[in-house]
Amino acid sequence: MKKSLIAIGIIALIQSSCMQDSKINQPTLGKFSIAIHGGAGNIEKMNLSPEQQKEYIHVMDSALHVGYEFLKSGGSSVDAVERVIMVLEDCPLFNAGKGSVFNHDGIIEMDAAIMDGKTLDAGAIAGVTKIKNPISAAKLIMRKSNSVFLYGDGAESFVSEKGMKLVDPSYFFTQSRWEQLQNALKKDDGMQLDHGDESDKSTNNKSSEGKYGTVGCVALDQNGNLAAGTSTGGLVNKKYKRIGDSPIIGAGTFAENNVCAVSCTGRGEDFIKNTIAYDIASQIKYAEKSLYEAVSSSIQTKLKSNNGRGGCVAIDKEGNVVFNFTTTGMFRGSANSEGKFFTSIYR
Amino acid sequence: MKKSLIAIGIIALIQSSCMQDSKINQPTLGKFSIAIHGGAGNIEKMNLSPEQQKEYIHVMDSALHVGYEFLKSGGSSVDAVERVIMVLEDCPLFNAGKGSVFNHDGIIEMDAAIMDGKTLDAGAIAGVTKIKNPISAAKLIMRKSNSVFLYGDGAESFVSEKGMKLVDPSYFFTQSRWEQLQNALKKDDGMQLDHGDESDKSTNNKSSEGKYGTVGCVALDQNGNLAAGTSTGGLVNKKYKRIGDSPIIGAGTFAENNVCAVSCTGRGEDFIKNTIAYDIASQIKYAEKSLYEAVSSSIQTKLKSNNGRGGCVAIDKEGNVVFNFTTTGMFRGSANSEGKFFTSIYR
Repeated sequence: MKKSLIAIGIIALIQSSCMQDSKINQPTLGKFSIAIHGGAGNIEKMNLSPEQQKEYIHVMDSALHVGYEFLKSGGSSVDAVERVIMVLEDCPLFNAGKGSVFNHDGIIEMDAAIMDGKTLDAGAIAGVTKIKNPISAAKLIMRKSNSVFLYGDGAESFVSEKGMKLVDPSYFFTQSRWEQLQNALKKDDGMQLDHGDESDKSTNNKSSEGKYGTVGCVALDQNGNLAAGTSTGGLVNKKYKRIGDSPIIGAGTFAENNVCAVSCTGRGEDFIKNTIAYDIASQIKYAEKSLYEAVSSSIQTKLKSNNGRGGCVAIDKEGNVVFNFTTTGMFRGSANSEGKFFTSIYR
Repeated sequence: MKKSLIAIGIIALIQSSCMQDSKINQPTLGKFSIAIHGGAGNIEKMNLSPEQQKEYIHVMDSALHVGYEFLKSGGSSVDAVERVIMVLEDCPLFNAGKGSVFNHDGIIEMDAAIMDGKTLDAGAIAGVTKIKNPISAAKLIMRKSNSVFLYGDGAESFVSEKGMKLVDPSYFFTQSRWEQLQNALKKDDGMQLDHGDESDKSTNNKSSEGKYGTVGCVALDQNGNLAAGTSTGGLVNKKYKRIGDSPIIGAGTFAENNVCAVSCTGRGEDFIKNTIAYDIASQIKYAEKSLYEAVSSSIQTKLKSNNGRGGCVAIDKEGNVVFNFTTTGMFRGSANSEGKFFTSIYR
């Protein structure tokens, strides 16, 4: 599995304003970095046409540019994470926001979380059906509520009272997602990642091809603050108001300054049982591992040995970014203060 | 705060069947241990009459005897945790099951989780209103569902389909809890632990006195398997379908064989943000700390430095039990294979 360990170390030099006399009034520019995922799973070249690949790469690149420009201008990592995830939520390609999958009852229920590594403040929502950008609702809960985690119409009432406009659930309808649910119901094969199992060749059919992934983002801003966020429609055909790992702080989402920020994707139950996001952080904190070593241990050893499926993106206090997944692919990308942009899909 | 560090180390000798010739056909008796909490908070002698103290001690002692006898007979730690918590859920004294507090809308919404340290399997529920023993529903999800975490009527549908009888929400009504909510609504002071804040003297009034706590249990069985469980009605006057730490694996509940099992109680948001249960486990795993050191670090240093309130009970692979809390009291008790029983309330 070493071949599947995909890591990118990004180290940027601190740009000092004393070297820029003409811009002496601008704040000192520190290094910054941002990285995203758009879901991990059975993602192979044969499942995506060249046009589809281009489309995914284009959207991820656009999202990264939003984050890059915002961080470059001195924006906070929390706000950068929100803005970048909003781009992905608004795109029907990904399983979050507009592109969310249907549950067993034909309803779209979304989960999301965001965490501020500076304060350890966090906000999370589960099972919301009327919130256009769940990541913004999670941030609103983090900033304006005494609670961390709200669900269903309770979460919707809270954000509505705080001024967030709710949308009609019909906003989230996409024909391809609807057909994906009908196929799942016909097969009666229970819940699945929205791209099917590794052995599930149904992803080759027209209805589900090119429709992948939970989205996530991690960022380091110029003030050294880390943040993480995750947003998802969950599993296709999910039942019984199931909550996955995305809104679980420590499982699918975690951020702590001077340690790391992590966003996960995959079969959520595996990530909850193995407390993956905080397992990565705790190995850095308590075993003095590097980000690369910690992520590799949590995903390739711990998660995999417990039959877990999925991956994550993580960033450390230096802005180093690591991607890692047990699946055949993960939509992913990064950008940093050196102006280096990266996007990829396959292993 | 060192005075508030309350730790009990229990080390029992392994009883070998080779020393018991008359019982040669019985399985080898290994050491076992079990411990409970019934909530942490502003619990002081002046708030409880001698009769009330006796009542709490009596119920905790009864619950411990249920667990002790079950473990002594070779029962599993998971089943022991369930049985012990059921005793506490069926008692109106504690904020779980029958004694659960009301939310802002006058509804009782309960959360619970259980985790099997042998397999890392877990089950969790949030916001259920018709389940007499939420801990049993969590176990049913752990054993019979592909999911870990279900909420609301979805969770109720699942357990009902699996044969669990639902109860009418009126089962959970208690006059004292109702008056407690009315007092909270009159004060309009937001959510609170069911025993009020440290500075909140309203706990001296008749309606709320003697009505404390979330419940939790950790156990080591004779096969060396660890388990943890937590059950709660959450915060008095809670709004917006808030989920606390009890059902969050890694925050309020965690178990992993050869490491530890943990159940927490207190202001849930603090435990979620600090991933307390898994923070304790990870310090044992990655920093080679003892259970005592890990718990002390997580509760007295990490939780407290982030203004957190509450406590936990934890057990390690040797059956050592540690209680620790930042509050003035925590209902707690333990029993082990040496036949040693312990119960306490105040600091």
